Amino acid sequence: MAGLQISMLRTPSSTMKHAILTRRFFCRIVLATADMRSGGFVSVSRPVITSIVLILSLYCFHVFALKSQLLTRHGGVTDLNAQDTVINYETCYFDQKIDHFGFLEDGTFKQRYLVNNEHWDQKGGPILFYTGNEGDITWFCNNTGFMWDVAEDLGAMLVFAEHRYYGESLPFGQDSYSDTKHLNYLTSEQALADFSVLIRELKRKVLGAQESPVIAIGGSYGGMLSAWLRMKYPNVVVGALAASAPIWQFPDMVPCGDFYKIVTQDFARSGLNCDSNIRRSWKAIDNITATDDGLQWLSGEFSLCSPLKKTDLDDFKAWLQETWVNLAMVDYPYEANFLQPLPRWPIQVVCKHLNFDPSSVSDYQLLGGISEAARVYYNYTGNCPCLNTSSTATGNLGFIGWYYQACTEMVMPLCTDGVQDMFEPQDWNFQAFSDECNSLFGVRPRADWAATVYGGLDIASHSNIIFSNGGLDPWSSGGVTRNISDSVVAIVIPDGAHHLDLRYNNEYDPHTVLSARIQEVEYFKLWITQARKLQIPG
Amino acid sequence: MAGLQISMLRTPSSTMKHAILTRRFFCRIVLATADMRSGGFVSVSRPVITSIVLILSLYCFHVFALKSQLLTRHGGVTDLNAQDTVINYETCYFDQKIDHFGFLEDGTFKQRYLVNNEHWDQKGGPILFYTGNEGDITWFCNNTGFMWDVAEDLGAMLVFAEHRYYGESLPFGQDSYSDTKHLNYLTSEQALADFSVLIRELKRKVLGAQESPVIAIGGSYGGMLSAWLRMKYPNVVVGALAASAPIWQFPDMVPCGDFYKIVTQDFARSGLNCDSNIRRSWKAIDNITATDDGLQWLSGEFSLCSPLKKTDLDDFKAWLQETWVNLAMVDYPYEANFLQPLPRWPIQVVCKHLNFDPSSVSDYQLLGGISEAARVYYNYTGNCPCLNTSSTATGNLGFIGWYYQACTEMVMPLCTDGVQDMFEPQDWNFQAFSDECNSLFGVRPRADWAATVYGGLDIASHSNIIFSNGGLDPWSSGGVTRNISDSVVAIVIPDGAHHLDLRYNNEYDPHTVLSARIQEVEYFKLWITQARKLQIPG
Repeated sequence: MAGLQISMLRTPSSTMKHAILTRRFFCRIVLATADMRSGGFVSVSRPVITSIVLILSLYCFHVFALKSQLLTRHGGVTDLNAQDTVINYETCYFDQKIDHFGFLEDGTFKQRYLVNNEHWDQKGGPILFYTGNEGDITWFCNNTGFMWDVAEDLGAMLVFAEHRYYGESLPFGQDSYSDTKHLNYLTSEQALADFSVLIRELKRKVLGAQESPVIAIGGSYGGMLSAWLRMKYPNVVVGALAASAPIWQFPDMVPCGDFYKIVTQDFARSGLNCDSNIRRSWKAIDNITATDDGLQWLSGEFSLCSPLKKTDLDDFKAWLQETWVNLAMVDYPYEANFLQPLPRWPIQVVCKHLNFDPSSVSDYQLLGGISEAARVYYNYTGNCPCLNTSSTATGNLGFIGWYYQACTEMVMPLCTDGVQDMFEPQDWNFQAFSDECNSLFGVRPRADWAATVYGGLDIASHSNIIFSNGGLDPWSSGGVTRNISDSVVAIVIPDGAHHLDLRYNNEYDPHTVLSARIQEVEYFKLWITQARKLQIPG
Repeated sequence: MAGLQISMLRTPSSTMKHAILTRRFFCRIVLATADMRSGGFVSVSRPVITSIVLILSLYCFHVFALKSQLLTRHGGVTDLNAQDTVINYETCYFDQKIDHFGFLEDGTFKQRYLVNNEHWDQKGGPILFYTGNEGDITWFCNNTGFMWDVAEDLGAMLVFAEHRYYGESLPFGQDSYSDTKHLNYLTSEQALADFSVLIRELKRKVLGAQESPVIAIGGSYGGMLSAWLRMKYPNVVVGALAASAPIWQFPDMVPCGDFYKIVTQDFARSGLNCDSNIRRSWKAIDNITATDDGLQWLSGEFSLCSPLKKTDLDDFKAWLQETWVNLAMVDYPYEANFLQPLPRWPIQVVCKHLNFDPSSVSDYQLLGGISEAARVYYNYTGNCPCLNTSSTATGNLGFIGWYYQACTEMVMPLCTDGVQDMFEPQDWNFQAFSDECNSLFGVRPRADWAATVYGGLDIASHSNIIFSNGGLDPWSSGGVTRNISDSVVAIVIPDGAHHLDLRYNNEYDPHTVLSARIQEVEYFKLWITQARKLQIPG
């Protein structure tokens, strides 16, 4: 969901701001395109993929590597949290219908999925099925250690399914993002149908899987998909763990300001004056950049790769705002590399640079502290020669795809007021957002659709869903944080950031996340037992 | 579902048969097109519809008429069961998205729906929402007397929503059926989304409806939609009455031969030798039509509008087979006009013409009896100068639309063996059916999709659904006839034909249907009480 907040920032409170932001938004997308084309996109045309066809359009390659090596290959950085756990999976491809909801487009594409059955009890052992998010599935596979940790205890097969339009699972190959027509099949409903069709195919074709109960697991948008998969296809999955899944971050469900309030609270609790100094920084930026000298100073102070221009200021502020948001998402209790390589409790480290008395420092001193703080996020490894304001996180996420989804179904209002949060006030402006989407993609978002199709606040009639939320995670603002019924339950991890529970066990884990994981596995076992009792042949 | 069995009959057991049947199938469609263009299709271009626009794209006309008059207008025949009940509804139109599952096609069309709020308790009284089938909604409105009968007791608003591509609710006006591209949005998923969006809009816009629990009601395909609406959108409807809804008549769920076995049983129990004589009739037709004189005799005996040719024989047999099937569907205990105007217990009347000892009559005598029997169905009013083998039922059903649906999602295997049923043996041949669909519409049916998307036999995790089935109804072969859980329940009406429970109370109703209706209303009241307890604001 790393792309999400960007589209929110692009919802301006004034027409002028809007024009500026739109331009920046577009530039960001071009950059992202370039990244993707040199990364995930070209990989689908590898001859090795297209030349091998096994029976029943399911075909697989074997991958056997160290987790850290895989991350290096994809992220271009060393995994600071590598435990040298052996990751061993097959990379498989399934011929998936491009359109599940119409019959005119009858073509197929290769959906990638990863399989590990090392610990699987072939006599109907469960399948833990990761419902892929908006990015390369290998990255999620490597960042969902929980599944690898519990596989043996459960005798489970692990499957990680890639979401269409991301990673290698491109419905129209390199043309997938070429225009609105080709993007038309990028929806959550199509993705859920992909998962359902794939699961049924696996159960049919993999010897021993016919009676295997399947549990959906996902984090963030992937968690939303897990919950929705159980809601919409309860015949396909017996239950779902939806970690840090903001299924209520849609219009008229939760206050739009809660998200940034949580970000602010994370900084407030992590160091003296930390949030106050960030709140003051926006005005300090305005003051200092009022002159060319100030602009130059700021560019130097932040070691920016491209010197700031007057017209870049909104962009620069948005980049900083995203930086604080991302830190709140990945405020993990140990060194990790999710969006960026970071120290343990990174916000505490950030806040050490922002602990001065706000009334006693100059704008220059304040922004000096801000620049040090930003470097914690962008240059913890010390390998970054300059800071690039056009990027805030890992390249494993598919930003354009997510922008398109935000511009269609995933309309998630966010806003700030500068009082209860540490950001400049910015209203949620649906019309401006819609206009922007129209000019970018030729589509208009449907604000009410998610509530219609996925039930909004009214999810009590469903069953077997765990919503886990981290108290530090801004996305918990739109999460389900209270029990809805006996079997639609919430687990709150007060000192957890974005889906901490889905990560590998770690010696620095707080006891709350260990306890959450234990509860989750208990629910899994309960669902598996229930499913075996209800087993319907065929 | 009257169109359904035709497409089944068109699944041949040999290539030659196939070629013949395909040709006939195509002719039938051309005829149906002509019918529709002179009926429902032109009505959408009425200036009165397009020239009036009220606020919020919901606009209504008032209809106040006798049920019998309405049926006369649409069916062209007198309703033999008219009770002169006053039918009083508004005809309304809602701007519905053409495509709910993609954002490229952003157009809208006018979905028609009928509203009666005469008995509605405006302080949150329930809404009974009929999920329209494959036909003109006014016809279903007039044939769902149950809703009119129970409205006062429940303080309910009645809404009858037309299914897209039928009646007046044509996404592309007169072009809706012009080619595969325009037909692409004719799916059950789109129809369910239409219903959900419309219900949410009504609850938002109709004063007093904000807290109204909505109950979905439907019969036949409309009943399948009601059940699926509750399964897929439990946030929108608190429960569903799915009457005579064969949600299991899909591949690998029930034996394909059960449908025709039930038809046969209906005839067997309605008169001595009745099924045996029909079973013998096919060979008698072959014997007699071996000569030109025989063909001529048969044409005369049946008073056919067009004399039979040698090449018409399979068509002729298929028409007879459909006639027996339709009789089984509408074997009601009183005079009625659903598919055709008919006497009470029409199969008993039919069987009076077929009660001779099979071993003692000639082929001529046998077919004489068959022709008398067919006339019970086609000429009960005595107004039919000749029998037309290109039509078997009311013109209110949209045959092309249903053929298209059968050729895409609604793949419902039927077969005969001539032993356990009274028909000529015919296997279910998916490949031939698929080829036929491809040549007709340029689409291929997806045999497994319905099971994936609607859960197949595994529907135990859902709640608040009543599946009612008539023991005489051949479609009960694919119905849910046993309780699945405490709240997914089956009601069987042993002496009921196709959704008898949805019809007006009648003095000749068997006690089993009266008891079914009482149970159904009790469940409605329970769901309404539950919903009020769980009420979620917003």
